[in-house]
Amino acid sequence: MTRRINLNADLGESFGVWEMGRDDELLRIIGAANIACGFHAGDPLVMRRTVRQALAAGVSLGAHPSFPDLQGFGRRAMQLPAAELEAMLIYQIGALAGIAQAEGGRLTHVKPHGALNNMACENAALAGSVVAAIKSFDPALILLAPVLSQLLLAGAAAGLKVVAEVFADRSYTDAGKLVPRSQPDAVLHSADACVEQVLRMLDADGIVSLSGQMIRTEFHSICVHGDGPQAVAAATAIRTALLNAGIDLVKLPEVLKSASDVSPAMV
Amino acid sequence: MTRRINLNADLGESFGVWEMGRDDELLRIIGAANIACGFHAGDPLVMRRTVRQALAAGVSLGAHPSFPDLQGFGRRAMQLPAAELEAMLIYQIGALAGIAQAEGGRLTHVKPHGALNNMACENAALAGSVVAAIKSFDPALILLAPVLSQLLLAGAAAGLKVVAEVFADRSYTDAGKLVPRSQPDAVLHSADACVEQVLRMLDADGIVSLSGQMIRTEFHSICVHGDGPQAVAAATAIRTALLNAGIDLVKLPEVLKSASDVSPAMV
Amino acid sequence: MTRRINLNADLGESFGVWEMGRDDELLRIIGAANIACGFHAGDPLVMRRTVRQALAAGVSLGAHPSFPDLQGFGRRAMQLPAAELEAMLIYQIGALAGIAQAEGGRLTHVKPHGALNNMACENAALAGSVVAAIKSFDPALILLAPVLSQLLLAGAAAGLKVVAEVFADRSYTDAGKLVPRSQPDAVLHSADACVEQVLRMLDADGIVSLSGQMIRTEFHSICVHGDGPQAVAAATAIRTALLNAGIDLVKLPEVLKSASDVSPAMV
Amino acid sequence: MTRRINLNADLGESFGVWEMGRDDELLRIIGAANIACGFHAGDPLVMRRTVRQALAAGVSLGAHPSFPDLQGFGRRAMQLPAAELEAMLIYQIGALAGIAQAEGGRLTHVKPHGALNNMACENAALAGSVVAAIKSFDPALILLAPVLSQLLLAGAAAGLKVVAEVFADRSYTDAGKLVPRSQPDAVLHSADACVEQVLRMLDADGIVSLSGQMIRTEFHSICVHGDGPQAVAAATAIRTALLNAGIDLVKLPEVLKSASDVSPAMV
Repeated sequence: MTRRINLNADLGESFGVWEMGRDDELLRIIGAANIACGFHAGDPLVMRRTVRQALAAGVSLGAHPSFPDLQGFGRRAMQLPAAELEAMLIYQIGALAGIAQAEGGRLTHVKPHGALNNMACENAALAGSVVAAIKSFDPALILLAPVLSQLLLAGAAAGLKVVAEVFADRSYTDAGKLVPRSQPDAVLHSADACVEQVLRMLDADGIVSLSGQMIRTEFHSICVHGDGPQAVAAATAIRTALLNAGIDLVKLPEVLKSASDVSPAMV
Repeated sequence: MTRRINLNADLGESFGVWEMGRDDELLRIIGAANIACGFHAGDPLVMRRTVRQALAAGVSLGAHPSFPDLQGFGRRAMQLPAAELEAMLIYQIGALAGIAQAEGGRLTHVKPHGALNNMACENAALAGSVVAAIKSFDPALILLAPVLSQLLLAGAAAGLKVVAEVFADRSYTDAGKLVPRSQPDAVLHSADACVEQVLRMLDADGIVSLSGQMIRTEFHSICVHGDGPQAVAAATAIRTALLNAGIDLVKLPEVLKSASDVSPAMV
Repeated sequence: MTRRINLNADLGESFGVWEMGRDDELLRIIGAANIACGFHAGDPLVMRRTVRQALAAGVSLGAHPSFPDLQGFGRRAMQLPAAELEAMLIYQIGALAGIAQAEGGRLTHVKPHGALNNMACENAALAGSVVAAIKSFDPALILLAPVLSQLLLAGAAAGLKVVAEVFADRSYTDAGKLVPRSQPDAVLHSADACVEQVLRMLDADGIVSLSGQMIRTEFHSICVHGDGPQAVAAATAIRTALLNAGIDLVKLPEVLKSASDVSPAMV
Repeated sequence: MTRRINLNADLGESFGVWEMGRDDELLRIIGAANIACGFHAGDPLVMRRTVRQALAAGVSLGAHPSFPDLQGFGRRAMQLPAAELEAMLIYQIGALAGIAQAEGGRLTHVKPHGALNNMACENAALAGSVVAAIKSFDPALILLAPVLSQLLLAGAAAGLKVVAEVFADRSYTDAGKLVPRSQPDAVLHSADACVEQVLRMLDADGIVSLSGQMIRTEFHSICVHGDGPQAVAAATAIRTALLNAGIDLVKLPEVLKSASDVSPAMV
């Protein structure tokens, strides 16, 4: 049976007059869009335009909620009471779901953004808040989360549909974590290096660390980026390489169908 | 057949640490809550708490969207491009709908807030934007709007279910408009005066102006307020007077059923 | 020579339509106002009104800057790059200084708010950012900071004028820290208890912990609160008790003069 | 005596992660920077960086305050009570003045932004609020305002130092107003057209309208823009043409000295 992989990217990160990203080009490459919900980027108009474009491109719509931090682009660590964070997440997911509904579409998934995502990958309580928010809003939504993360575990434990993702352009430690951006080898800059890492991880059925260590762990989505011409070139090259390798590039929910034929959905 | 009237009030207008309103008491009086959506008041946590309380009280849930103006409580006139305003309205309605969904409830209606409401009552283009936003989000939602307003007309013309409201504590001009707050007789302060006005308007099947002029115009909802002890006392007195007059006080959608038995839904 | 003590309180914490605090009453009690700068509370209009009232009352004007967190009232821990935090602090102090200047007044001091203050009391690097911001804006401003804190130390080490404060209504651990609010005895509720603690600390020339432990440490300002009738009553009782004890209640800069006659300014 | 002209541009209009404008290049061309104050663009860090760069470039520092409207870039018309607007303007000017002070600089001028500027050019009451805010903050600040505007008149009437500006890349009606952007000829796109317009207006000592009409009116500053490569090229070409014409390009306050030698300061 043909292997199915989803490519995802963060979209709709313009705000007001300020443009960011190359959404048009990415939408021809990816199968799932994680759309900013106005708390770290995006505004209602940007969100609506992005939803329209994603629907037109046949790409899965996902909410990309964040801490309330426009100035810091959601990258600042914040301490929020669990009840407040959950309400904020439902607010953001609801707002995007409302815009999707107005455009005749439906959300398929949620992927937290920035500091919230990073913290929820390490902190089980925070991961629990994210999962609780998604589940209370709509238990049929997919949680898209990094491989080997507390967030992925929390989602699976709570009975959510989960899809694990790897990053095409970030290197991994031997422990399966992202190499921190403060270190020189944290980011893969060339399209070739990204393609090579993606193929290696598909081959290994898991993470391949910077030092060559393999950690078997299922993943069905690959996160690509769109900031800068190089990033789009890398995403294009990854897409081409995967198609050449005979892999089916699909919308997010379709990787679950494929997975369920073969193996337990996740983790 | 027993006459049915809905009492509505604006709720959830606290923000962060700042408390406003006497929601607990109002929820024992009213049949429909218009809940702030975070743009002029409310925040995700306040919204969730208010939705929970309203559901527990058996009160209809409505969105009370606004211009983006927390500092001015949505009372500042703003000029927004139609596309931007529509997206903002869908965003707010979606956010509250999401919170309602997370709490097992559903929105029944939308009532714009403050300057947006005032301007949409006078300006057909703006009224059209409000109506377009509601319709694109969910054409089954009721538009709750002042009697004799452009907003009410626009909603009815677009095929939305509409319910007209009068204000219990505001006096009307001979043209059927609210007497501006700058004038001495704009607001009825005593509970007795409010009760008297409400009974007179029910009797007249329409507006009764400050000078005693009557304008026949259907209404099925009465807006009461909760800011200050006097307002809650007035709302309580109105409730008691209506019940004593043999009127059924109902949730918002139920006035439509009653109306459709008797007469065309609106305007 | 008569002992001089300053009473300080946080003022101007209303926002838009939302009122908070009893500033009018406090201004008859205190000698120094720490005025919110719009990031956790306050807005330009509230700031200007508060500055006017404080000037009319003959009370020292201080900036009370915060993390950018209106919804959380500046109580949420946030991680900000030092350069960004410093710029934010200068922005806030400058904004309030501008309003003071427009009203014919001048700032005398700065006291950080909420989570920023708590974190800067424990974290020397953060304390350094606060001190650097004040010093770059105006090295003649007084830093008002809790006794025994990293913040006080950092100010003194950088050559700022510093004044140490104690809290009238918070109990202290044997280590000289505030008992966390999560514990039952954290807050002194009655006016009598507040007066007693203040007199005990003046007598001890330092902190007296909940268990009766004394830690000698100079302080020249006492922080009182204005949220709730009890708090204002307590502040009034403290004022009366201090005057009865023959203590001079003064504006903030005057405690420095007194101190410099007797002992090194601080720490 | 050599004619003195100032070139001014709006700077510091990035926000958080979102970059805007080509400030580095403009700072080599202009003599006065109008720096966003965080209400329509800019944030404390962007403001501080911009102030540093402008000081290093020897360019006059001006505040560029706005309505509170980050999402709309200050381009949305808003109705604010005069007292609130004045307080907002002082807040913004004070914040930038504070940052300038922290960097060892001083503000020389204020130029309102966007919708606020447009409305204050037509509405004497609003112009009065802008002027009152500047005067209460620092009556020595220069008001930089469009030729033939209510704003310029209000400043001069109140005794502020005023400098009139023309736009290099906008065409004028026979009434001396800007041709609205909705019309085809509103904006001059080529560097050549901008240079030609500037030279024609200098020659005419006033406005030259699209139809060739001349309106004599003093101006001492020319506004150039930096959005896009063409705009910077036009600004460079204007600078070169003016230098070639033997005109002294100076910081903003220096045009006042020159003016006072020759003629009444303004209007």
